[in-house]
Amino acid sequence: MEERIRKQLAFSLEIDKEKNIFRQTHLSGHGRNENDAEHAWHMAIMAYLFREYANEEVDIAKVMLMCLIHDIVEIDAGDTYAYDEEGLKTQKEREDRAKERIFSLLPEDQKTELIGLFDEFEAYQSAESKYAHAMDNLQPILLNNSNEGGDWREHGVTSHTVYGRQRKTKLGSEKLFEVVDQIIQENVRKGNLPE
Amino acid sequence: MEERIRKQLAFSLEIDKEKNIFRQTHLSGHGRNENDAEHAWHMAIMAYLFREYANEEVDIAKVMLMCLIHDIVEIDAGDTYAYDEEGLKTQKEREDRAKERIFSLLPEDQKTELIGLFDEFEAYQSAESKYAHAMDNLQPILLNNSNEGGDWREHGVTSHTVYGRQRKTKLGSEKLFEVVDQIIQENVRKGNLPE
Repeated sequence: MEERIRKQLAFSLEIDKEKNIFRQTHLSGHGRNENDAEHAWHMAIMAYLFREYANEEVDIAKVMLMCLIHDIVEIDAGDTYAYDEEGLKTQKEREDRAKERIFSLLPEDQKTELIGLFDEFEAYQSAESKYAHAMDNLQPILLNNSNEGGDWREHGVTSHTVYGRQRKTKLGSEKLFEVVDQIIQENVRKGNLPE
Repeated sequence: MEERIRKQLAFSLEIDKEKNIFRQTHLSGHGRNENDAEHAWHMAIMAYLFREYANEEVDIAKVMLMCLIHDIVEIDAGDTYAYDEEGLKTQKEREDRAKERIFSLLPEDQKTELIGLFDEFEAYQSAESKYAHAMDNLQPILLNNSNEGGDWREHGVTSHTVYGRQRKTKLGSEKLFEVVDQIIQENVRKGNLPE
């Protein structure tokens, strides 16, 4: 087997481990914790379905791929909860090391391409990145809302903290931020989320 | 909230259930059974990485979306193991009912579009469908190979049966069929797969 395809297969097998990285979000129906691969799958489909609401025109194939790979570094670095202040301090360093190790399994051209896409997502500047981040925010709030805000209550999160993160959803989609805003307000009213 | 976006959100929440549909394939490292959402995520990334080996030129965004949604009907119809003869007899009918129920949650235009894509995948005719099927075949064999063929041994599958399914991989990618062929032969040699 040629070196190139062998490397592509090695990377493909390595990312299987993402299915064992569990997030704080729970599946609908008060299910178990969701893992990163499931979250990425869900985000990519939602990105396609909601693309009409992106603020700027986006290359949807690029957005989908960005969604699919954006958490691969967590295979080594672990999931850092959005409201975990201590974890957030070391997140960048842990993820940089992971990025180098994991994407280096690929042939050089694909390593460069995927790291480029990962970095573009992280930089929050391009239309695709801003819209993909809106999905990264909308997907868990959809599940959490269906579970009466259980994830927020578990972590004692307030609406102020949720807005802190979700305001950036607006950068990718004004329309989807309206949806998120309604969900947050509804959960505040229901007592699922203290102000 | 407008009817359209409400429907898109309802569908998005419904497909969360795909994370609870477990397959016969086990995760690498002799892990637990894999679920449909994880399988689809893995296939979509692999489709992108291996696209240079597709027999015909493919619209990669279409292939990725096809991979991501191709098992949604299993939310109602369940997973039918590739070598389960009884299950295969009723599979089409069960999946047709599921397809109608689940995609009807979407606005009409998106229902039509996604059913079209699902049907195109099933028809095994277009370049995108044949290549997406190659991923549907390659992804589990990659995991199973990493687990010394445990899934085959569990079900008493022979290389003849595996070839029966995997020969169609060749329709999507001659090159990836060579890879699959090598994997099968190696497992026969190691005694993981009787001839």
